[in-house]
Amino acid sequence: MLVQGKQFRTIWLKEGDDKIVQVIDQRFLPHEFVIEELKSAAEVIVAIKDMHVRGAGLIGVAAAHGMYLAALEAASNDSFDSYMAKIAAELKTSRPTAVNLEWAVNRLLLTIDRGQSIEDKVALAKAAAEKIATEDAGFCKSIGVIGVKLIEKLSKQKNGETVNILTHCNAGWLAFTDYGSATAPIYEAVKMGIKVHVWVDETRPRNQGANLTAWELLNNDVPHTVIADNTGGHLMQNGLVDMVITGADRVTSTGDVANKIGTYLKALAAGDNHIPFYVAIPTSTIDWEISEGQSEIMIEERSAEEVKYVQGMADGQLTKVLITPEESPAANYGFDITPARLVTALITDRGICEASEFGILGLFPEKVEAT
Amino acid sequence: MLVQGKQFRTIWLKEGDDKIVQVIDQRFLPHEFVIEELKSAAEVIVAIKDMHVRGAGLIGVAAAHGMYLAALEAASNDSFDSYMAKIAAELKTSRPTAVNLEWAVNRLLLTIDRGQSIEDKVALAKAAAEKIATEDAGFCKSIGVIGVKLIEKLSKQKNGETVNILTHCNAGWLAFTDYGSATAPIYEAVKMGIKVHVWVDETRPRNQGANLTAWELLNNDVPHTVIADNTGGHLMQNGLVDMVITGADRVTSTGDVANKIGTYLKALAAGDNHIPFYVAIPTSTIDWEISEGQSEIMIEERSAEEVKYVQGMADGQLTKVLITPEESPAANYGFDITPARLVTALITDRGICEASEFGILGLFPEKVEAT
Repeated sequence: MLVQGKQFRTIWLKEGDDKIVQVIDQRFLPHEFVIEELKSAAEVIVAIKDMHVRGAGLIGVAAAHGMYLAALEAASNDSFDSYMAKIAAELKTSRPTAVNLEWAVNRLLLTIDRGQSIEDKVALAKAAAEKIATEDAGFCKSIGVIGVKLIEKLSKQKNGETVNILTHCNAGWLAFTDYGSATAPIYEAVKMGIKVHVWVDETRPRNQGANLTAWELLNNDVPHTVIADNTGGHLMQNGLVDMVITGADRVTSTGDVANKIGTYLKALAAGDNHIPFYVAIPTSTIDWEISEGQSEIMIEERSAEEVKYVQGMADGQLTKVLITPEESPAANYGFDITPARLVTALITDRGICEASEFGILGLFPEKVEAT
Repeated sequence: MLVQGKQFRTIWLKEGDDKIVQVIDQRFLPHEFVIEELKSAAEVIVAIKDMHVRGAGLIGVAAAHGMYLAALEAASNDSFDSYMAKIAAELKTSRPTAVNLEWAVNRLLLTIDRGQSIEDKVALAKAAAEKIATEDAGFCKSIGVIGVKLIEKLSKQKNGETVNILTHCNAGWLAFTDYGSATAPIYEAVKMGIKVHVWVDETRPRNQGANLTAWELLNNDVPHTVIADNTGGHLMQNGLVDMVITGADRVTSTGDVANKIGTYLKALAAGDNHIPFYVAIPTSTIDWEISEGQSEIMIEERSAEEVKYVQGMADGQLTKVLITPEESPAANYGFDITPARLVTALITDRGICEASEFGILGLFPEKVEAT
């Protein structure tokens, strides 16, 4: 997508030196646009751990690139296999609860294993990392092409008047290689000339909406307005929201949705006001092992500091300000579960389906045949 | 209530010089405890306008004190009446949508009118201002004594285990002269030795929960935890909230509740999880002229800057940080409407009632007789 008028992905191999991985360092957005060079697997691990890159799709792609850099390093090492195993283990645990990390690292391990020589292994690793990046962008592109039909339908119902879409957190292109999940249908709509406007939940405590989603939309000329997370219900009561689209960190086989804390509250308000609530995901987000979100998905508790302090720009400096009494405790739950009954439909790279076991299986005929 | 171990009200006449009004300047809380001296009606107007004092109850009481200072000033003035009329008009418009302001100023005008001499008028104004302050505290005290029965009942059901109460914004003693509305039953419970714990919604965009409610509870030894506004739904889904108590800015004659933006979302989550949702108010908050909250109450739109910037402490300095791209627009709706169907009951100084015309009239036999 566009940054200051120029096309970017979130991660790529440096032009002229394909032994260097370049990423957008998201810690400084929206205030500073910083491109970071990652020259070793160790630097990739730090970038994932300290959230220079974040988002389910992107950390998988970053880990794959980390494995490629590890292969380069291992090539000049006595024990190729044990070095790769060590880095693989470190990459897998660089963020908790990230399904994509494990999946990407395992895929690279299998691919590298097929190489006949060390040179061959390195080449295979590089090709696999680039392929995973392109696949990730492709899934998002499909979500966009499929999901835009829902926006188009609302636009027609409104005789071409602006369609107002509310989104929570950042399920934008910054969370993937390109396009995003929740944002892909929106970008597609803008390309088709459909009038849209996006209500951006700021998404406390980390403000990914205010920091990242607003910045994405601004750079791609999508009309948008940032709101406090408290605001969505009032907007829905007053006819100012036509649809909600969020992403998800995990979707159970029965359609329960684990996503950024606060998603459940917006789903309740959408239900109370008869507004469609969509969850846009690549199908890799579906966790086939789990059927009951509320009891089976562990919700990560993060540092209280993220609630007590807010980061932003003051006098040209990134600054953290304390907003509570120093001695007051705070709690920081990262995600919540939106039960399938509140989800109108899932928008996936394979099509749109009901958020239910029946609906999801409809997109996976091979699973039905297998059982 | 207690501040650093010492009893305070939010507003009082200075000991030894009753021509000076002292208030807690709430702009610097929770970081600095500042007592401001207001020596003229003009200074009171600024204090209300710039939110040194805020909260429905307190601004009424402050306006009454402003009228007393105005009477002192008018006493040495050629035209007592025209000076009083001028200050009265300025006080009434010092904050929008504040019913209490108009009510308090009119009451002072009527009282002063009864004075035979200028001296008499000044004395009457002083007495009326102090009486309004004491009445305000008395209403809150009654809400506490009446509302604590609901907490006591839950405590018994839980065999004395901690009762978890979620609150939104600041309907604490800082919003009144003393005790508060939503907090009064909580302070009463603590006094009775009932174990309670309060989940404090930070309440973006102005963070009255994180800034004020947390500070109040900390100073009065009430166990509490600050959370992002997104969190309450998840807590309710997981049995971590036993009841919700909020205040209200206005309640219609049919029980619809106008309160700080985000209240509606918490009421929806409480309903979805079968958790009682109470609204604690002095009965003066009931607007008898209005029966349909959604269509009849205008929601104040405030400055976008409050969404785009967050104020807090950095390096010992009160600092504002920008959290969005500079160019992204933001919207800031101050309040929302929680429909009566989502309110379990109103807790008032006259008793607990159903949030309905029938329920409210039950507390006002004189109104029934009048019709």
